[in-house]
Amino acid sequence: MSDLPTSSRSAVLEKVNDVQLKETPIKPVGPTDVLVKVMAVGICGSDVHSYDTGRLGDFVVKEPLILGHESAGQIIGVGSEVTDFQVGDRVALEPGVPCGKCEYCRTGKYNLCPDVQFMATPPVNGDLTQYITWPAEFVYHLPADMSYEIGSLSEPFSVSIHAAQLMDIQPGSTVFISGSGPVGLLSILAARTFGASKIIASDAEPSRLEMALKMGATDTIDVTKQDVKEAVKALTAGDGADYVIEASGNNHAESDALLTLKRAGKIAYVGMPTHDTAPLDIMFMTTYEPQIFGIFRYANTYPLAIKILHEHMQEAEQLLTDFYSLDETQAAFERTKTGKSDSLKVIIYPNEKLRDK
Amino acid sequence: MSDLPTSSRSAVLEKVNDVQLKETPIKPVGPTDVLVKVMAVGICGSDVHSYDTGRLGDFVVKEPLILGHESAGQIIGVGSEVTDFQVGDRVALEPGVPCGKCEYCRTGKYNLCPDVQFMATPPVNGDLTQYITWPAEFVYHLPADMSYEIGSLSEPFSVSIHAAQLMDIQPGSTVFISGSGPVGLLSILAARTFGASKIIASDAEPSRLEMALKMGATDTIDVTKQDVKEAVKALTAGDGADYVIEASGNNHAESDALLTLKRAGKIAYVGMPTHDTAPLDIMFMTTYEPQIFGIFRYANTYPLAIKILHEHMQEAEQLLTDFYSLDETQAAFERTKTGKSDSLKVIIYPNEKLRDK
Amino acid sequence: MSDLPTSSRSAVLEKVNDVQLKETPIKPVGPTDVLVKVMAVGICGSDVHSYDTGRLGDFVVKEPLILGHESAGQIIGVGSEVTDFQVGDRVALEPGVPCGKCEYCRTGKYNLCPDVQFMATPPVNGDLTQYITWPAEFVYHLPADMSYEIGSLSEPFSVSIHAAQLMDIQPGSTVFISGSGPVGLLSILAARTFGASKIIASDAEPSRLEMALKMGATDTIDVTKQDVKEAVKALTAGDGADYVIEASGNNHAESDALLTLKRAGKIAYVGMPTHDTAPLDIMFMTTYEPQIFGIFRYANTYPLAIKILHEHMQEAEQLLTDFYSLDETQAAFERTKTGKSDSLKVIIYPNEKLRDK
Amino acid sequence: MSDLPTSSRSAVLEKVNDVQLKETPIKPVGPTDVLVKVMAVGICGSDVHSYDTGRLGDFVVKEPLILGHESAGQIIGVGSEVTDFQVGDRVALEPGVPCGKCEYCRTGKYNLCPDVQFMATPPVNGDLTQYITWPAEFVYHLPADMSYEIGSLSEPFSVSIHAAQLMDIQPGSTVFISGSGPVGLLSILAARTFGASKIIASDAEPSRLEMALKMGATDTIDVTKQDVKEAVKALTAGDGADYVIEASGNNHAESDALLTLKRAGKIAYVGMPTHDTAPLDIMFMTTYEPQIFGIFRYANTYPLAIKILHEHMQEAEQLLTDFYSLDETQAAFERTKTGKSDSLKVIIYPNEKLRDK
Repeated sequence: MSDLPTSSRSAVLEKVNDVQLKETPIKPVGPTDVLVKVMAVGICGSDVHSYDTGRLGDFVVKEPLILGHESAGQIIGVGSEVTDFQVGDRVALEPGVPCGKCEYCRTGKYNLCPDVQFMATPPVNGDLTQYITWPAEFVYHLPADMSYEIGSLSEPFSVSIHAAQLMDIQPGSTVFISGSGPVGLLSILAARTFGASKIIASDAEPSRLEMALKMGATDTIDVTKQDVKEAVKALTAGDGADYVIEASGNNHAESDALLTLKRAGKIAYVGMPTHDTAPLDIMFMTTYEPQIFGIFRYANTYPLAIKILHEHMQEAEQLLTDFYSLDETQAAFERTKTGKSDSLKVIIYPNEKLRDK
Repeated sequence: MSDLPTSSRSAVLEKVNDVQLKETPIKPVGPTDVLVKVMAVGICGSDVHSYDTGRLGDFVVKEPLILGHESAGQIIGVGSEVTDFQVGDRVALEPGVPCGKCEYCRTGKYNLCPDVQFMATPPVNGDLTQYITWPAEFVYHLPADMSYEIGSLSEPFSVSIHAAQLMDIQPGSTVFISGSGPVGLLSILAARTFGASKIIASDAEPSRLEMALKMGATDTIDVTKQDVKEAVKALTAGDGADYVIEASGNNHAESDALLTLKRAGKIAYVGMPTHDTAPLDIMFMTTYEPQIFGIFRYANTYPLAIKILHEHMQEAEQLLTDFYSLDETQAAFERTKTGKSDSLKVIIYPNEKLRDK
Repeated sequence: MSDLPTSSRSAVLEKVNDVQLKETPIKPVGPTDVLVKVMAVGICGSDVHSYDTGRLGDFVVKEPLILGHESAGQIIGVGSEVTDFQVGDRVALEPGVPCGKCEYCRTGKYNLCPDVQFMATPPVNGDLTQYITWPAEFVYHLPADMSYEIGSLSEPFSVSIHAAQLMDIQPGSTVFISGSGPVGLLSILAARTFGASKIIASDAEPSRLEMALKMGATDTIDVTKQDVKEAVKALTAGDGADYVIEASGNNHAESDALLTLKRAGKIAYVGMPTHDTAPLDIMFMTTYEPQIFGIFRYANTYPLAIKILHEHMQEAEQLLTDFYSLDETQAAFERTKTGKSDSLKVIIYPNEKLRDK
Repeated sequence: MSDLPTSSRSAVLEKVNDVQLKETPIKPVGPTDVLVKVMAVGICGSDVHSYDTGRLGDFVVKEPLILGHESAGQIIGVGSEVTDFQVGDRVALEPGVPCGKCEYCRTGKYNLCPDVQFMATPPVNGDLTQYITWPAEFVYHLPADMSYEIGSLSEPFSVSIHAAQLMDIQPGSTVFISGSGPVGLLSILAARTFGASKIIASDAEPSRLEMALKMGATDTIDVTKQDVKEAVKALTAGDGADYVIEASGNNHAESDALLTLKRAGKIAYVGMPTHDTAPLDIMFMTTYEPQIFGIFRYANTYPLAIKILHEHMQEAEQLLTDFYSLDETQAAFERTKTGKSDSLKVIIYPNEKLRDK
């Protein structure tokens, strides 16, 4: 492993709304690690939230922090014990590395590991940087014909898959996707994969509803014109949805989405909330007997996420809307922050800029 | 079936807070029915709610209604096709009779049958009456040494069992019972049956906490003196509870109870709410990944409920605190309405008064 | 309901290998029944077994019996309480009517009802007859563009779906289908519906392996040339299959199929066995920890079966290979008995013959 | 960690039926390891099998091997990063250490890890030795009042618990335990813990049936006098058992046990088989729809095993029947090999001999 880089140019959040480019050290490559040249990083709402507020849930950004955790790249170095990868391999990086020893890790729920090291979650740096050392165990091969940009979608798509798995979405069912941002749109793909026959997507933006149909939704609801509960009931012969994925994080939508369920229906909250609580309809809970699933990241989803994205690259491609170089990171964040309806997934290139819009 | 009664003396809710004793007709005994002499009826919070407000969830009492749905009695007549029962048998009555044909019935969730006929839910009469005709399919044998009063507890206990089954409570786990009224106390018994090792019960009344310990709770929390979340954490080495059964119906408790869960914990809402919504902590949902189970009645629980009550008759006996004749029904409701802490389960005897306090 | 037929021409198994055409009475149409003009009946291995041996598992044909239980038809009469159907509706008939009251029925496993009335299972007649009265609860609408022949496939397809549901086949998984007769081929469709990524099908007939690929198998194994266990391992990078559906009923295949599983894999036996026992590899059981699922018919599958067949009518069409009039029933059975490799599903028309080969 | 032992006296299987006492090296204590003074080791059928045949399933003893894997001891050294243990702690040792990285480990099924290092499974040594270095992650605290001998039962008891967990034994159910050797008797305790109401145990030895009753069985079957299937049916009103734990490893019993199940019942094979295959009743599989669970060791069971043993120390105590010093290891194996009916669990003391019979 000679000629490997000794430092990496990184986009560092210095303080709220202030990103600086800096050279940062690269962690030594241990025997079970690989060194990855980061080729594409998608920007997530949580990154923007950290950028804009210096906070992420209970985490507070106290020190300068490298953001970014949705990524793909190319391997340029491998540890002495690594056998599954070699230099040149194209890969996606799973951003969370759990302890492997706690009860959550040992029972297959490693996303809930209290000691997980997760990119861009203080004090752990993300990978808006040229090069990163990462445990080979949390690195996954990309198919030869899959772009790095689509590879980076494995991360947000994993959240959708995790929700579908926890709720155990069944073939032939009706799924309502509340909110058609990137996670909502990827959730449409997850619902299709699990065999849903009717997939209803909602949003306030007509362009996103169009995109929802392109992703495979069978019906859409414009929340500015329709009552969500009434609309879902109308589309399901009065029954309601078997499953809901609430992907908007909108407070009003969180409450409404529950009420679209049929009896014994299930709802998963995957949207990043911008508030602390939402009103829970207790009367509905104790008469319709729904089940509510909180969702926090994912576990054991990457192989499936890559497999499905590979089968649906054309749809996935449509989610990629904005492209920036590492030097333009601040501009990219500002772009994402404005949340224009025609902007879905913003990609930053820590090395070569591979695309222009 | 000669010499069978032709009418039945019933306690009829004429209007809010007004119960009258009347002779009412007895439904003819069909080929698959039995005729039951009702021996003991427990009063439930929902009965009191109907009595006091004329409403029960979405149901409105428009016509005079016979209340009562927790009951046991003796068979005095059997339909021509009934083979499992004979005159003289002592039985508990399951108060809900589903359609048997809808998708909920056919998939084992008959509690969610939209066409269920449920005692004391308008317009279906309950069984605060001397004699009732009921489908043999929803009638269950009582052990010879089980009193009618304990037999009538099968109904509220079924709710606890259903919650334990839906959450799939595992042996060795920690269960927090929020609220130690009759359903909370019976939920302690359910948690024991499912093998819980630590059972924490809360209430505002010291006498109820004492009763919780008698029912098998390992720890108690006085909500007037302790913060529930802190107390549960302290009792679980900081982990939180694996399962919560929220049995208080108290708005504040509903929100707090969720936060006592450990990661991936489960909570069931069984308490009859006195309000429409409770604040749901969305941040907790999307970081701790809990699962919330709405609970509506129960399905396929009676045989197990009777079996467990039979093994724990001594504990169950303690829940029986107040005894009235049918003529004293209004007094019984007033007694239950006041909710004195030393009053747990109020029993009314539609026929012979079997006990005095 | 005037002008309804008063008797029905039926193909009656008089004794082993002897089918006679006779006029048989039609059961009166009760208030919750419909009267169906049977338009297409598929022949199942079990029908042939009864025809050839006079036995079906524990059941013995003692009286003349009408065979046939895979069917679709048109409604020509409706009972007074039936609201979901009207004359002229095109429907599939679920051939088993359970008691609705036993513990299996009440918990959603009505296929295991000991008192089920199942067509062509002695002493219950099947529907190789012009007209049959059937409970509306077990009749299902067909889409307007679905043929009666494909509609009749709902029955064997239900077996595949039931196996997939019991094993809980997950998206992205590998499924090995052992045997590519009609049920095996339909199981390929089921595996696809449940999101399997790799579907390996085996058979001894090259023409059936070709058909397997047309149905959506990704790989095939010729059991006359390849060792099944080695072949599945080779196709799965040494891992083995996540799930197996054993659909051949071949004694040797039953034992071999288990060994193709990866650790913690699941296998379902759906093939009609022609023998009593198969050797179970106990060493494999106690080191690889597989799960084995016995499969008996299905429950609650028809709506999904019809939905999926509707999405895959082109594939389903390929399974239909032989067509006979009711008068030709004996010839049809002889044809099925020979089990020619180019014969998959044999259809008999109790009324108009809709197709010729 | 001064004054720690530098070598350990061990009972080494030199060749078939030949155990020698030798000084063997102690693995250095790594930062996450503890050093344990082994106080009690239970002898398992698999140890005897290795002793007697030089084989264990696919494993072959090619080099001298230290046997023993059911053990408890006292900590005499702790690694630099270990925080949960200190010198003097009394502990049980889980004998298998999985890789922590494969798909089985990451999904909570670490018992199926292909790279697991399991004591006494060639080429990994067991702990019939004075001192052993072991990863702290697979070491568990014993309650102060639990003996080392009972602590060592955590291992075989874990197998029973794992079977109960995989089958998801429900409260109120009927469990048939086929075979009342040590694992069968511990399975009775597991069935009780999971709330079984009726527990039927079988054996050919009257003394073991007596012991089964002491462990909590409600009924027993003497297989020398009764047909197992008929006897279970007679004890269950003709229904059959909800669950079976086959713990005899007897070929005939393996086949018979399946047939004692009611429809949709579940059976787990935990007995160490002495043969390759058992006849599987395919007709039963495809009409009664049972589920068969292969069982291989256990995962995540130790905390629960210790908790339950602690609640039932009196019953557990009865299983301990024979006690040997390390020097008497060969005699202990010979004793176990003879399988006298009054011998249940044989304990060897690698250090002080704590008990005489």
